[in-house]
Amino acid sequence: MARSDRLHLGTFVYTFGFHPAAWLHPDSDVNGANDISHLAEVARISEAAKLDFMFFADSPAAAVGHPEALARQPTKMNRFEPITAITALSMVTQKLGFVATASTSYYEPYNIARLYASADHISKGRICWNVVTSDHDETGYNYNRQGLDPHADRYARGEEFLDVVFGLWDSWEDDALLLDRASGMYHDPGKLHQLDHAGDHFQVRGPLNIARTPQGRPVIAQAGGSERGRELAARTAEIVFSLASNIDKNAAFYKDVKGRMARYGRDPNDLKIMPGIVINTGETRAEAEARAQEMVDLMHPEVGLLMLQEFLETDLHGADLDAPFPMERMPRKAKGSVAMFQEVKEFVEQGHTLRELVTHYARQHTGNGLTGSYLEVADFMQEWFEAEAADGFILMCPTLPASLRDFTRLVVPELQRRGLFRTEYEADTLRGNLGLSWPVNRYAAARRAAE
Amino acid sequence: MARSDRLHLGTFVYTFGFHPAAWLHPDSDVNGANDISHLAEVARISEAAKLDFMFFADSPAAAVGHPEALARQPTKMNRFEPITAITALSMVTQKLGFVATASTSYYEPYNIARLYASADHISKGRICWNVVTSDHDETGYNYNRQGLDPHADRYARGEEFLDVVFGLWDSWEDDALLLDRASGMYHDPGKLHQLDHAGDHFQVRGPLNIARTPQGRPVIAQAGGSERGRELAARTAEIVFSLASNIDKNAAFYKDVKGRMARYGRDPNDLKIMPGIVINTGETRAEAEARAQEMVDLMHPEVGLLMLQEFLETDLHGADLDAPFPMERMPRKAKGSVAMFQEVKEFVEQGHTLRELVTHYARQHTGNGLTGSYLEVADFMQEWFEAEAADGFILMCPTLPASLRDFTRLVVPELQRRGLFRTEYEADTLRGNLGLSWPVNRYAAARRAAE
Repeated sequence: MARSDRLHLGTFVYTFGFHPAAWLHPDSDVNGANDISHLAEVARISEAAKLDFMFFADSPAAAVGHPEALARQPTKMNRFEPITAITALSMVTQKLGFVATASTSYYEPYNIARLYASADHISKGRICWNVVTSDHDETGYNYNRQGLDPHADRYARGEEFLDVVFGLWDSWEDDALLLDRASGMYHDPGKLHQLDHAGDHFQVRGPLNIARTPQGRPVIAQAGGSERGRELAARTAEIVFSLASNIDKNAAFYKDVKGRMARYGRDPNDLKIMPGIVINTGETRAEAEARAQEMVDLMHPEVGLLMLQEFLETDLHGADLDAPFPMERMPRKAKGSVAMFQEVKEFVEQGHTLRELVTHYARQHTGNGLTGSYLEVADFMQEWFEAEAADGFILMCPTLPASLRDFTRLVVPELQRRGLFRTEYEADTLRGNLGLSWPVNRYAAARRAAE
Repeated sequence: MARSDRLHLGTFVYTFGFHPAAWLHPDSDVNGANDISHLAEVARISEAAKLDFMFFADSPAAAVGHPEALARQPTKMNRFEPITAITALSMVTQKLGFVATASTSYYEPYNIARLYASADHISKGRICWNVVTSDHDETGYNYNRQGLDPHADRYARGEEFLDVVFGLWDSWEDDALLLDRASGMYHDPGKLHQLDHAGDHFQVRGPLNIARTPQGRPVIAQAGGSERGRELAARTAEIVFSLASNIDKNAAFYKDVKGRMARYGRDPNDLKIMPGIVINTGETRAEAEARAQEMVDLMHPEVGLLMLQEFLETDLHGADLDAPFPMERMPRKAKGSVAMFQEVKEFVEQGHTLRELVTHYARQHTGNGLTGSYLEVADFMQEWFEAEAADGFILMCPTLPASLRDFTRLVVPELQRRGLFRTEYEADTLRGNLGLSWPVNRYAAARRAAE
């Protein structure tokens, strides 16, 4: 199967936007964290522009840090639970897909299999599960643990978890439902299967108590920065949400992950690698820069320090902002994203001050990823797409819905003019719009093999 | 607070209706288990009639039994997961409440607290959690267990679970959100609280990462037939979904449960006791009887036996239908509902044959609870309500939406004529329409007490 000549686009959802000062922006909805009409508007704009999906990040814990700093950065303090949010939003859209994050460390596979299958039926095939193992100690404290389990343990559980969920999603074959009132047979008992999974972490009998979904099974997304994460993505993911660092690094990552797929019998086109990217844009570069500067001006200095602390899970309060980073407070290894940690560490090793690091980190994550005219943004996307550094992008809009409106009003039409983006949805399901294969049911495959 | 002079009504949801042959009824939607538009129609009818809520029963497992019998009774084989279903339905309604069942035995409290709080925000205050501990072995097999945990263990876990969820729902005080762009303070850090729960079953730090909900917290429903269940209901429930057996027994139950509330400092009006009742009705009694008979005629004999087996969790295949119940196959005690088990046992002890028991049980649970003209049904409801045997009823419609249409077209206007049922919603929230008190936040109460 040849690679598509079109790229894919998703809208990343932090309530008010990706910039920590987004809630202070006069165009944002200050009630957006609890009033679903805000996200419904984001969905409406995304669908009108024919974007592939909305992507809900998540962590099952409030952020930790100094209470006053947290009170200035509400995104991780007060937010909708993603599965309920996407289910609600699917009722006010027709074609847009929805990605909801949930952690294998703190759920039971039967519950996850049901929740996403049910949402996939409700949305008529537009749901994706972003599989994470969680990456902050504070999540563990909410689930009977003394912090985060070690990376290897989380991955071992996560891998088995995913296998169980895939198994449950195969409980009903594609044509198991008969719905035959004449014979009184609702389903074909020979096409409904018990899983009988017995592994290190889970014993799950099945079958799942909801029929095979409109997409066969929901689409699977992952982040996959670490070695083990890349391997799991190559085996199971259909969307990889990576970090946009630079075109060469991203092209190498792209090649590496797609190169691993053959050993699992998978076609490289069945995985879309979509870096997340923060974009400020406008008619001109000056306009884009003014938008970026507006956000920087809105941000309180406490908030930048909090972000860095939160990522490193270390206490930096009282440290001299104009001295080099206090290395005794640098954790020995990444608790969360390995790639992101590596980048911070390299920056520190170049001898920058703490203030410079805070600014650098905040910019990386608050709106200076890419600032340029709509033509420059389209050029960037085209270059990355053609260089096979990306199959598309996840838009980390600094503010919602304002930055998304800028992007869809200016960049999307330009990408369409260049033939790089659709002008109409190709399909009714997310799987269809992403051009992913139909997932083969294991029991049907076994029967065909035996015949 | 005086008792209200109006009763409350809810629509019980088994996909096609409560009768196991409901899916065979020509007016039902054969795709209803996976196409949400079927339940959206049930919601529309319920809301047009000003009913209080739709009530979703649940079990996190497919039913077990002989494969062919199961294929004739789809209700427990293929169904929406309730939390996603109610969230979706809240988007197409404005005033109707929604009750979703979830089990404390197979979830984590932080997840339940989030899911329901999020749904309560999305619906703008119309959500209720029906708390169950699960009552069938097959659920345990899906969650790493060798069947059901013992009743006492499930209750111990369930009681602590509920305390944790209540604690998490108090994380944010009523007025914790400031949303003050001028000062840059999103919330008041003094009004956001860490729970720090450390108990036998759960260690949960909190706070919950979603603000206090439009109802303060979601409404709580329970079944509560056993001694321990009654006590838990008196302490924590706001709706009790009981079994309608006879007016004297129900009045005794009503008095018993409400009588226990004082020791928890609760007003009896803060708990609505609503027996589930199967109703066939029509303009005349003959019409109602014809509807009931229609369902009986549609049912396959295998299905009745399956229902009884499923409840008793015993294998009855091969037993002589025309001999007395084979007592060696009778379980020594109830695995599920104690009240229901007691009723079956009494019937058996009267010397009835297995066939008679199957018919009796099937009728009890399939549509002969109450068969009468709309005037007779209204009389029945009035009598029970006035005798304090019920604060209202949960309508186990034999078919959906057909039986619900009969009820709302005929019985509701009659109840309204008698002043027994509302003609307009009193409030925008479920809590408001049920006339329940606002839940006092524990931290705000402690501060007031200290002042």
